[in-house]
Amino acid sequence: MDERLKKQLDFALEIDKEKNIFRQTHLSGHGRKENDAEHAWHMAVMAYLLREYSNEEIDITRVILMCLIHDIVEIEAGDTYAYDTENLKTQKAREDAAKEKIYSLLPPDQKQELLSLFDEFEEGKTPEAKYAHAMDNLQPLLLNNSNNGGDWKEHQVTSKQVYGRQEKTRLGSEKLFEVTDKIIQENIRKGNLKE
Amino acid sequence: MDERLKKQLDFALEIDKEKNIFRQTHLSGHGRKENDAEHAWHMAVMAYLLREYSNEEIDITRVILMCLIHDIVEIEAGDTYAYDTENLKTQKAREDAAKEKIYSLLPPDQKQELLSLFDEFEEGKTPEAKYAHAMDNLQPLLLNNSNNGGDWKEHQVTSKQVYGRQEKTRLGSEKLFEVTDKIIQENIRKGNLKE
Repeated sequence: MDERLKKQLDFALEIDKEKNIFRQTHLSGHGRKENDAEHAWHMAVMAYLLREYSNEEIDITRVILMCLIHDIVEIEAGDTYAYDTENLKTQKAREDAAKEKIYSLLPPDQKQELLSLFDEFEEGKTPEAKYAHAMDNLQPLLLNNSNNGGDWKEHQVTSKQVYGRQEKTRLGSEKLFEVTDKIIQENIRKGNLKE
Repeated sequence: MDERLKKQLDFALEIDKEKNIFRQTHLSGHGRKENDAEHAWHMAVMAYLLREYSNEEIDITRVILMCLIHDIVEIEAGDTYAYDTENLKTQKAREDAAKEKIYSLLPPDQKQELLSLFDEFEEGKTPEAKYAHAMDNLQPLLLNNSNNGGDWKEHQVTSKQVYGRQEKTRLGSEKLFEVTDKIIQENIRKGNLKE
């Protein structure tokens, strides 16, 4: 087998490990914890179906790719819960080391391409990155809301913390932020989120 | 919330159930069984990275979408193992009923769009569908090979059965069929596949 194809297949096998990186979000129906691969799949499908609500015009293919690959670094760096103040401090350093290691399995041109997509997502400045972040926020919010805010209750998350994170959704989609806001307000009323 | 957005979000929540549909393939490292959402994510990433090996020119966005949605019907219809002769007989009827039910959650235009993508994949005639099928075959083959053919051994699968299914890979990618063939031959030699 030629070197290029071998590298691509080695990478394909390596990312299988993303299915073992578990998040704090639980599946609907009060299910088990969700893993990164499932989260990425769900975000990608949602990104496509909800693309009409992006604030700005977007290249949906690039958005879908960002959704699909944005958590691959967590194979090395681990998942960092959105409201885990301590681990958030070291997240960037851990993920920077991880991205170099994992993407180096690929042929150099594809390494560069995926690194650049990942960095674009992380920087969150382009219309595609902003909309992809809206999906990264909305997907677990939908699941958690369907479970009566169980994940927030478990971690005693406050409404201020949730608004802090979900504010970013507004940058990608005003319309989906309206839904987000309604869901947060409802969960405050129900006592699922501390004031 | 307007009716259209409500339908889209209802669908987004419904497809969360795909994460509970387990396949016969085991994750690498002799892991647990893989579920449909993980499989779809993995196929979609591989489709993008290996697109240069498609026999024909393809619209990679449509391929990725096919990969992402092709198993949603299994939320209703269940997974059918590639070598389960009995259940394969009823698969089409079960999936036809399922697709109508699930995609009807979407607004009519998106229902039509996803149904048509799903049907195109199932028919396997367009370059995109042929290449997507190559991914549907190659992804579990890589995992199973990494586990020393454990899934084949468990189900006492023969090399003839595997070639029967994997022949389709050739229609999407001659180059990836070469890899497939090498992997099958190696597993025959090791006694993982019955002659």
